[in-house]
Amino acid sequence: MANYIFGVDVGGTTVKMGLFDKEGNVLEKWEIPTRTENHGENILPDIAASIKEKMVQKSIVKEDVEGVGIGTPGPVERSGIVHQAVNLGWPEMNMKTELTALLNGMRVEGGNDANVAALGEMWKGGGQGYKNLVAVTLGTGVGGGIIINGEIMTGSTGSGGEIGHIHVEDNETEACNCGNFGCLEEYASATGITRLANRALQASDKDSVLRKSEVSAKAVFDAVKAGDELAIEVAKQFGEYLGKALGVIAAIVNPEIFVIGGGVSKAGEVLFEYIKPAFERTAFHGCKNVVFALATLGNDAGIYGAARLLL
Amino acid sequence: MANYIFGVDVGGTTVKMGLFDKEGNVLEKWEIPTRTENHGENILPDIAASIKEKMVQKSIVKEDVEGVGIGTPGPVERSGIVHQAVNLGWPEMNMKTELTALLNGMRVEGGNDANVAALGEMWKGGGQGYKNLVAVTLGTGVGGGIIINGEIMTGSTGSGGEIGHIHVEDNETEACNCGNFGCLEEYASATGITRLANRALQASDKDSVLRKSEVSAKAVFDAVKAGDELAIEVAKQFGEYLGKALGVIAAIVNPEIFVIGGGVSKAGEVLFEYIKPAFERTAFHGCKNVVFALATLGNDAGIYGAARLLL
Repeated sequence: MANYIFGVDVGGTTVKMGLFDKEGNVLEKWEIPTRTENHGENILPDIAASIKEKMVQKSIVKEDVEGVGIGTPGPVERSGIVHQAVNLGWPEMNMKTELTALLNGMRVEGGNDANVAALGEMWKGGGQGYKNLVAVTLGTGVGGGIIINGEIMTGSTGSGGEIGHIHVEDNETEACNCGNFGCLEEYASATGITRLANRALQASDKDSVLRKSEVSAKAVFDAVKAGDELAIEVAKQFGEYLGKALGVIAAIVNPEIFVIGGGVSKAGEVLFEYIKPAFERTAFHGCKNVVFALATLGNDAGIYGAARLLL
Repeated sequence: MANYIFGVDVGGTTVKMGLFDKEGNVLEKWEIPTRTENHGENILPDIAASIKEKMVQKSIVKEDVEGVGIGTPGPVERSGIVHQAVNLGWPEMNMKTELTALLNGMRVEGGNDANVAALGEMWKGGGQGYKNLVAVTLGTGVGGGIIINGEIMTGSTGSGGEIGHIHVEDNETEACNCGNFGCLEEYASATGITRLANRALQASDKDSVLRKSEVSAKAVFDAVKAGDELAIEVAKQFGEYLGKALGVIAAIVNPEIFVIGGGVSKAGEVLFEYIKPAFERTAFHGCKNVVFALATLGNDAGIYGAARLLL
């Protein structure tokens, strides 16, 4: 194979880009703005221009490039067809063929950003050495990526691994961003943990450091580490929801490892103390032997995974 | 490829066997007993002997046989290693290599029986024309098989698709066969529906035809069709549990079709009336567009799927 790969991770405000060698070492990283105006018509041309510029800069010829991997928000089919990439304003289109055309026929592979990030964590992050992995991103929302035998499980319409929208609570009156009620994302994301904490604060008169500043997922886990009782109660609720959901995922997918990432995962290993009890209690015995690990690539998981699509 | 394939489905009391042409037409079907004594040491030799006998009978030479597919209970790894095939008494072993040796090097492919049956339904049953399918078998227990892009999702230790052991109820005091509490199997299997019905009969004084004879899943759905209020209540509970579980599976796997089989599925399309409301309410919008179909191969799904492993 050729010497270089480009990895591209398209976000709502910036496009992260990386130049990799074929062993997966990142040689250079940079960002360009995501221009979402006019239905995002400039996004792919901007990416193509930036890649070409980098090639000139580094004296890399087309034959030296194995191809370009790209992760984008929303469902992405195996063929490269993108649906509902709402954040980018894109109409339905095939991003692989479009970007290939803009790059004079260069090979392009694409996938959903959360799925691609999961692949990145498998390749060079918290999931190294495993081929059957479920990545869970606890950020503003809850994202997921499922890797089976080293390949992304895309699903029939590109919506495989939408684990943030697993139904986990029947008695929810506040709607999830997706319109349903009681999705995992409503309790296990940063926003969800904040929701649980605010509810706990309202429901009790118990003293808590959480009453003294703005409530956030970080504040909750900082308070947990300081032994705050109310924060520990919130962490237990969070762990009950997420642990049971991971138990269900285990029974379906039978992975070797869960890799937990996203902003919430900065709390560290303490998360596992709260997730594991519910997981151990509810997971099927044949699927219980799963490693829990933290993601290690942070915001770079996307560009790593995108590059890995070419291998 | 060669002209013939053998499909073998190993059950706890009988081994079902089929001779197929390469288009998947079954030319002959027969059964032999499953001899489980002495850790099931005769099972594979009996199968090999029966295949050889059939070949002599039909004047089929080894070169005319593409191979033998075999489905067995318990987790089966992609390599053919069988774990915990409790029903058969087998120790841990590689059934592919063992059977190949007994058949003088003939090609053997194997899988878990529920997974293999799912493949059969995809090939020649209720899931024909689809490549991303979840098969749900509502029998004494609840079995499952997940097919992604035409291939069985085996899972890392052969326990993929164990959907009967998805945790669906926190307030259960009776243990599932697996040892956990609140598994889907406890409510959606034939036994589970009977449990729900007995509980409903005890909890209420309402008149019901179910009070007049032995309670069974069949009796419940017969009563539903006759408009029996209490039976309808039970069917709603069943549908709530199963519909929500399928919603969760959809968010993870994003299949094109659910194929519902097993004894309970003999109730017919009426099942869907009770499953779909909870599914529609809780499934993620991007994964909601799923076909619901009944399995059509009955007990032959296993031999069809086993033969399909060779293609």
